[in-house]
This record gives sequence, structure tokens and C-alpha cells, in this order.
Amino acid sequence: MASKYTIGLDYGTDSVRALIVEVETGREMAGVVFNYPRWAQGQYCDPAKNQFRQHPSDYLEGLEYTITEALKQLPAEVAENVVGISVDTTGSTPVAVDERGTPLSLTPGFENNPNAMFVLWKDHTGVKEAAEINALSSKWAVDYTQYEGGIYSSEWFWAKILHVLREDTGVLRAAYSWVEHCDWIPAILTGKTNPLTLKRSRCAAGHKAMWHEAFGGLPSEEFLTALDPLLAGLRGRLFKDTFTCDVAAGTLTPEWAKRLGLSTSVVVGVGAFDAHLGALGAEIQPYYLSKVMGTSTCDMLIAPLDEVNDKLVRGICGQVDGSIVPGMMGLEAGQSAFGDIYAWFKKVIEWPIATLLPETGLLDDFTKEKLMEEISGKIIARLSEEAAKIPVGESGLVALDWMNGRRTPDANQNLKGAITGLTLGSDAPRIFRALVEATAFGSKAINDRFIEEGVRIDGVIALGGVAKKSPFVMQVVADVLNRPIKVARSEQACALGSAMAAAVAAGIYATTEEAQSKMGGGIETEYHPIPENAAKYVVLYKKYRELGDIIEKG
Amino acid sequence: MASKYTIGLDYGTDSVRALIVEVETGREMAGVVFNYPRWAQGQYCDPAKNQFRQHPSDYLEGLEYTITEALKQLPAEVAENVVGISVDTTGSTPVAVDERGTPLSLTPGFENNPNAMFVLWKDHTGVKEAAEINALSSKWAVDYTQYEGGIYSSEWFWAKILHVLREDTGVLRAAYSWVEHCDWIPAILTGKTNPLTLKRSRCAAGHKAMWHEAFGGLPSEEFLTALDPLLAGLRGRLFKDTFTCDVAAGTLTPEWAKRLGLSTSVVVGVGAFDAHLGALGAEIQPYYLSKVMGTSTCDMLIAPLDEVNDKLVRGICGQVDGSIVPGMMGLEAGQSAFGDIYAWFKKVIEWPIATLLPETGLLDDFTKEKLMEEISGKIIARLSEEAAKIPVGESGLVALDWMNGRRTPDANQNLKGAITGLTLGSDAPRIFRALVEATAFGSKAINDRFIEEGVRIDGVIALGGVAKKSPFVMQVVADVLNRPIKVARSEQACALGSAMAAAVAAGIYATTEEAQSKMGGGIETEYHPIPENAAKYVVLYKKYRELGDIIEKG
Repeated sequence: MASKYTIGLDYGTDSVRALIVEVETGREMAGVVFNYPRWAQGQYCDPAKNQFRQHPSDYLEGLEYTITEALKQLPAEVAENVVGISVDTTGSTPVAVDERGTPLSLTPGFENNPNAMFVLWKDHTGVKEAAEINALSSKWAVDYTQYEGGIYSSEWFWAKILHVLREDTGVLRAAYSWVEHCDWIPAILTGKTNPLTLKRSRCAAGHKAMWHEAFGGLPSEEFLTALDPLLAGLRGRLFKDTFTCDVAAGTLTPEWAKRLGLSTSVVVGVGAFDAHLGALGAEIQPYYLSKVMGTSTCDMLIAPLDEVNDKLVRGICGQVDGSIVPGMMGLEAGQSAFGDIYAWFKKVIEWPIATLLPETGLLDDFTKEKLMEEISGKIIARLSEEAAKIPVGESGLVALDWMNGRRTPDANQNLKGAITGLTLGSDAPRIFRALVEATAFGSKAINDRFIEEGVRIDGVIALGGVAKKSPFVMQVVADVLNRPIKVARSEQACALGSAMAAAVAAGIYATTEEAQSKMGGGIETEYHPIPENAAKYVVLYKKYRELGDIIEKG
Repeated sequence: MASKYTIGLDYGTDSVRALIVEVETGREMAGVVFNYPRWAQGQYCDPAKNQFRQHPSDYLEGLEYTITEALKQLPAEVAENVVGISVDTTGSTPVAVDERGTPLSLTPGFENNPNAMFVLWKDHTGVKEAAEINALSSKWAVDYTQYEGGIYSSEWFWAKILHVLREDTGVLRAAYSWVEHCDWIPAILTGKTNPLTLKRSRCAAGHKAMWHEAFGGLPSEEFLTALDPLLAGLRGRLFKDTFTCDVAAGTLTPEWAKRLGLSTSVVVGVGAFDAHLGALGAEIQPYYLSKVMGTSTCDMLIAPLDEVNDKLVRGICGQVDGSIVPGMMGLEAGQSAFGDIYAWFKKVIEWPIATLLPETGLLDDFTKEKLMEEISGKIIARLSEEAAKIPVGESGLVALDWMNGRRTPDANQNLKGAITGLTLGSDAPRIFRALVEATAFGSKAINDRFIEEGVRIDGVIALGGVAKKSPFVMQVVADVLNRPIKVARSEQACALGSAMAAAVAAGIYATTEEAQSKMGGGIETEYHPIPENAAKYVVLYKKYRELGDIIEKG
């Protein structure tokens, strides 16, 4: 009998990746990445205002390109034996759609309107709206934020919707409903784009939209209209039911089957967030903190429903039945910026090259471009190398990792980053080290919060770009947490997790646990804390917390 | 009758400059600069430890080079008609000397020992010792710090001496006495190097060594030995009398006359600090704050003795009869780092170029060097240009300018710099702007302190590299102070002031005021505050003070 294959489609912040996986073995057959072209040019974004929008065409072009290119690398029988596709995306990344489920930016008159595009997870334009949601929720009979850590974030569904609707009357008039990125891709692929009936992801709804069975679904119409009359009626055009990633959303439409070179019998699974399916692809197990470490972090933990069902964990991003592994409680926390902070610092120190090198008359354009590329490509690696030589505590620098606000513990998107202890001897590697330490301290704050709230942590498993590519960062995090950190083997844990989910949705395996046991890649390496550094970090972490306290108080 | 000339010799942090001036008119005939070669290579320094030392050969080589080269540019009769040389230097920049007044680093066995070299003004290795001086002084019958603002600084004479003597037993055994840079150069030129009799500068002694007439000179032997028995007997090998800059130290030795191509009748004036003679060269007048704005700032004010003699100004660097203008009270304050902060940031963002550009195989060595030079030379100007476009308050960044500690108000060298309000949108120009604003806020804190202490300020006159070359910085300072700032015309105010002092020491003019009126260059330009910005800075300055308070307390 021929092997069967599933495709995991992983939409990250900068690019989308398709991974074709052999279902029986988990063998990764082929993978192709597509960088969003409009996004790469900074279109529709305004970093100074924390406005980050993505155009649906970036997603659609990437969908077709990555799958068809990956299939091209393989024998024709692979395409014939693909049985499922599942999708993971960033989130909360919602878009305003019309009655047919088409994002407004794909309809006439809205082509270049950022408010008609996907509002990317890290867009913080809805800070004010999040604060209003929190204020109203705290005095409402039902606290709708209780399963989302008690604090609603500007990174989430309702804050973003309310902000856009207030800001843009054109979008307000034209928006029939709103759809998360992870729900829109399966809807497109299956042709089931009707916003009233398309299958909505449990993890997006439960962690970001205040959906909970105990509330009978989304927050009440009364609550939403009290928040703003602008929202009147929207609840009825959203959803009541949600679905876990083991459920099928449908099968490929003839049109998409043809475009992708696949059969119309291919099952498309209900989508989920990248981190959640990444945890699946990266050996998640009960009471292990699964850390997706990339531009930001997502820290996930699963636990048997009966052990944590009645426990409300204060200050995290949510606890949702089945959001990560169907049948388990999924708890989520995370840092709003992690690798993004290193990238920010890189950009700051790259300014002379980016600004002044292009102007020189000493070089031709080709050499300029080559040179910029070469230097830019080496910066983080060399900074890491130099920073690793600096003894813990030597620089006296203490930084705060809130350059993109703080997601957990205790969401507060108004917070900002800081670097203190600066002297004229604080060079780039020392500052970089302090920034890395700050991100590690942010990780420890989350780790400690779970434990304070009575959720034990038996171990840490890391995945994501930073986990795979930055031994220096990983060692600092292990030292700061004073815990060993296992790194999952798969280079593409999110895409692999999606492929696993697709195998369950397509009926190959009965549960995600079974898919994990057959398709999982195991552990690649483990970082062990250095006791001497760990001891020093106890002191530095205290300073970080004290600095955070005084900065937060004002 | 032939014109007469004096030479002002100005030793800055990085270089020495000789300026030949026509005494009758103040016409600047020729000027030559010499960069200290050992210093330029970073020898004997450890910025991470705030250790900054300078080798006496850097000074001597520069002395001969600058004067002879300047004279070469002029007709022979100029050299024949030079009547005086005066010297200004950084300070407190003391060196350990033997019985003949020779710096230990010019004696066998100490050639490469940084502790046997000049301890540059910005060296902060004596932080602990400064704290001990303050602690002892606060409980002593006489508060020896009272004329130095009430807080002794690690940048000053005794803290540096004590630190070096404790750290280096070789220097401890060999050091007979200690001499300030501004006293050593006149001593060398006149051959009067005996530490017991060489003429000591009033401004160095009064502002940095706790010398005061009311104390009968330096702090008592009891005080000094209570501070540390290591200091026993040193007081007797230092000095009792001090001299203002209108006094002659002697005439050129035959050897130096020959080396410089001058007559042995040339009078050498008593030296002074660069800022003080700079104020003289830059139109200082009573109750005008004269700000030397360079790597650091020195903020000086003169007032009639009878008006301020009994007033103790809290938290400044000192008040000394005749330290700036003989016959007037000289009050001094200043910021430990000003332009140094911009240079620090430049170095941080230049790291990729300095580190990675030299390694590329794309360019030959000559092109690499040219390119680095070109980019490096443009950074500050372009940052200023971009930063100037950013509206006041737009970035949300607030920085503290204490990267080199805080000199005034209320000296505290343990303080460090900080940047707060960082987001992922905080780019290099925004951070640069915040740093410029922080240095301007540091200026305002000094301005406000004088006024709080009852010393009125009628106007501001700026001089120094930043004042002349950075319209962006000057506008920000004018906006923050909400005062017009006049910029003195002379490009070389310190050297010109030295040349004025030399004219008085040589007997051409009776007073420095007379020399100023004949030789002064007037005002070149004036910056006027922009009311809209000034109003916004009231709010931001409050934030800077609040941030400073919480950082200082915590």
C-alpha cells in the first residue's frame, strides 16, 4: 500500500511554510517557505504607532506557491496520496469580511486600506479599547476575562475589532463579520466562507475572543453594546460553536484542488494558532511548559481537565478546553516580544549601514547590496559570540523586555522597555546581553506565575527559531530559569504539528496523542543550567523585578 | 612698534592645541592641533571600569609639535615677538611625581603603569574613595567639601590619589608628591618642577583639592590620615599657596626656548582648567552662565565677591575666589558626560561597521578604511538631521544622562544612565533625540539649582565643540532651558582665554577684564527657544526628574 501524506501549512509573522509529511513515520518529505512580499516592504504598517497589518494576498500567494513548489520536489505519487491539510497561523489576527466571507481589502474601494486587512497579532493600536474591555468586565456581573487570565489584551480579537470600527467608518459600514486568519484559510480551501457557518477554531475563540461554554459562547450582546453601541448585532454574525484541531472543516474545492495539484478528497482540518500546533509538533506532554521562542514567545502547558478545570490561573492568556490538545485543558501565556527585541536592537545598530552606506560613492550598487547583506547577516551571531564572553552581572546593565508591552504575567500593553545601568563602557555586545537576559527574565516571570498559581511545571520543551538557532540565548534562559531545557528536533514544529492535526482530521489517527507518537521527531538537544550563573541570576532577576515594579508604578 | 603675541596652549581630552594670538587685537594668527597618539589607541584605559589614563609623553610631544608647527606658518618676526604662554588643561587630572617633579611614568620601572600616569578628569576608579571622603567630611568638625558643593567627586584630586595609592604599592613607594596637569606644563616650561615650590593653580586647588583660605590651605593632616594612614605626610609635600591665572609662573628655560624657537624672556603664566580659561575667551561676564559644551560640560558663573562670598551653593562643584576671573568669585558646576553620550551612542551603533566591515572579502583594505571613515564621519550629523524632524514628545522615550555618573547638581558617580519608554519602533534617530534631550535636561537641573540657591542667572553663553558644531543640540538646550543661548565667536575659546591670561601674566594688560575687552571675539550667534517646544519640555523635564528620582532611590 502506498504511503499517505499530510501537509502542514504554517503562517508565521514574516512568511508561510508548507511541509509535506509522511503520515506513517513523520518523515518530512519537502518544505518550502514564502516571504510575504507586501509585508517585507513594510506596507500598511507603522511601527512607531505599533500598527501591523497584513494583506490577504500575501497569504493566498504563499499558500499556492509553497504547496505547489513543495510537491514539485517530490514524485507525482506523493501528491496523489496527500490526505489532509491543516493550517496554523499567528493570532489573534482577525480581518473584517463581507457577507461572503471575503476580506474587505479584496473588495473594491478597500484595496489599500490597512483597516480592511488582517490586524496582525502584534498590532497594538487597540490599547485604549483593551483598557475599556477590562474596565467594563471588572464591573460586569460576569467577568468575561476570567478564562483569559483576567486581563484582556490589545493584541486580541475584540480590542482590534473595536479599534478599527471606531477609526474607520468605511470599514464599519462594510464589515459584515470578522474572521481569524486561522479560520479564513480553511474556509477558503473548502469554499465554506460564509461567516455564519464557517468552522471557528476553539483555540482562537477561547483564548482571544472570550468565548467559553460557561458563557454560552461569546460575551453577551448587552456586554458588547455597553462596550460600544457600534458593536450592536455583530455577535449574531460571528459564531456560537467552536471546534478543536482534530475536526475536519471540509474538503478541498475543485478550484483549489486544481490550483494545488491535489485531489478534492483532501480533508482540510480546522485551523489553530501556530504555537498550539507547534507544541503538538514538539513533543508537548502534560505539565511540561512548551515554549515557542521566536519573534515573541508562546508558553503553553496542558493538563488533564479534571485536575485544573476549576482553577483560574491569574494573569496568563487563557485556559481553554481542547485549545492545544483535544481533551486536555490548554493553558497559554507568552511574551509580546522576544526575538523581536534582538531584531529591534539589530535594526538600531544597523542604522548607519542602512542609511549611510547606500549613499557612498566608493562602491557600485551591486557591491553595496552584497556588503549590506553580508554585514546584516552576521550581526546577531557575532553579538551572541561576544556577549557570551561577558561574565554574568559584569556590565551592571538591567533591561526590561516590554518593548512590545507585556503579555504575561498580567497583560499590560502600555508598558515599555528600558535599559538601565548604562555607562560610557556599555558597548553593543553588553547591551545585547542585557536584552537577552531581559527576555529570559520575562520567561522566568511566566514560569514563576504558573507555580504561584498552583500549576506545577515538570520540565521545559523549547521550539521555534530562537530555540533552534541561538545556543547563547538558550543557555541564558536555562541559567535564568535554573531548569534544563529540551529542544524539540523538528525544524518546523508548527508545520509538523499541523500535519499531525491533518492526519487526525483526515481520520488516519484517532487522537492527536496517537499522531504525536507516530509522527513526532523527539528531542534534539538539552541545555543544562550552569549553577554559578544561575546563582548570579537570582540576584539580577530580583533587580529586574524591582526595576519593573518602579517603572510600572510610574 | 612690532605687534606682540601670546600663545594659548589648550590641552583637551583628546588633543592639544596651540593658538598664537596678536595681543593688541585678539587676532588669531595660527593654530595647530595634535591628537594624543597613545590615547587615540586606547592605551592605559579600560572604559568598562571607567579607567582613563594619559601618558605624559602625549602631552610633551603635543606641546612641541603644536607650537613649532604654528610658528612655522607665520613670519619669523612673530616668534621673536611672542611675550607669553599660558596653559589650560582638563582637570582634575593629577599625576604622581618623584622629588624632582617627574611623573613616575617617565621614570624607570613605571613606563607602562597606568597608575604612574595622569588620571584623566573622567576617570571614575575612585568612586569608593570619594564616598569615604564624603562620609568622613560629614562628621568632621570642619566640612572640607563645603566650598565644593558639599559632595566630593571621584573625578577629583584626593579620591584619585587615594585610589591609586591603595591599588599600587609601587606607586605608593615612589610617589613623592602629586601635580595637576595644568601645573605640570608650566613647571616643565619654566624648569620649576620642584613639587614643593612649583606654582599651583588656584582653580585646580580650590575646586578639586578642597583648598581654601579659610582652612589655611588643604585639609588638615589629621583629616587626611583619618581618611587613610597611607596619606600621612603627603600634605606637607603638596602646597599651601595657590595662584590665579594672571600670575607669572616663570620664564622659558633655555632648553624649551630652543626647542620651541622662542626667547627665554617669554613669560609662562600659572595654568588653569580649560573650562575656566575658555570662559574668559568666550565673553564671560558676571551672572552669565558660561557653558563649555563638549565631551562633558562645565557650567561657570562669576559674581562680585561681596555679593556671594558668604553664600554656600549646595550641590555644585565649587566656589573659589579668583578661580575663573581674578578678583571675582568663580562658581562651577557641570555634567560628567555631554557630547560623550552622543559619542557613546555613535560607537554602539557603529559596532557592526567597526567589527564586521573589516572582515569582508568584498573590499580591499584601502576601500574598507575609506568607507568606515566616510560613514563614521557622517553618523552624528545625519542622526541630528533625522532627530530634528521628530516632534517633541512623539517617541515617548525618556533617558537619563548619567552614563558617566552625575557631577552636578549633587555629585553621585555611582549613578548610571538609562533609556526608558522603548518600543519596537524606537529607531536610532529617536533614541539619539532622547539622549540629546537627556543632556539638555541635565543642563536644566544645573540652571535650576543655581536659581534655587539664590544665584541669579541673567543669560547663557555657550562655547565648546558642541556649541559650535551642533545646531540641533543647541536648539534643544535652548528649548529645554527656555532661555536664549549666545554662542561665543572664537573657535578656540579655551586657547584664546589662555592667550589672554598670558597677556596679563606677561604684563601687557593689568587685568583679565582688560585683556578680554581687547582680545575678545564677541558673540557669533544666538539660539532662541521655540515656545511650543519649551512648553512641551516642561512636561518631559518633569518625567526626567521623576525617572531620575526613582532610579536614584532604587
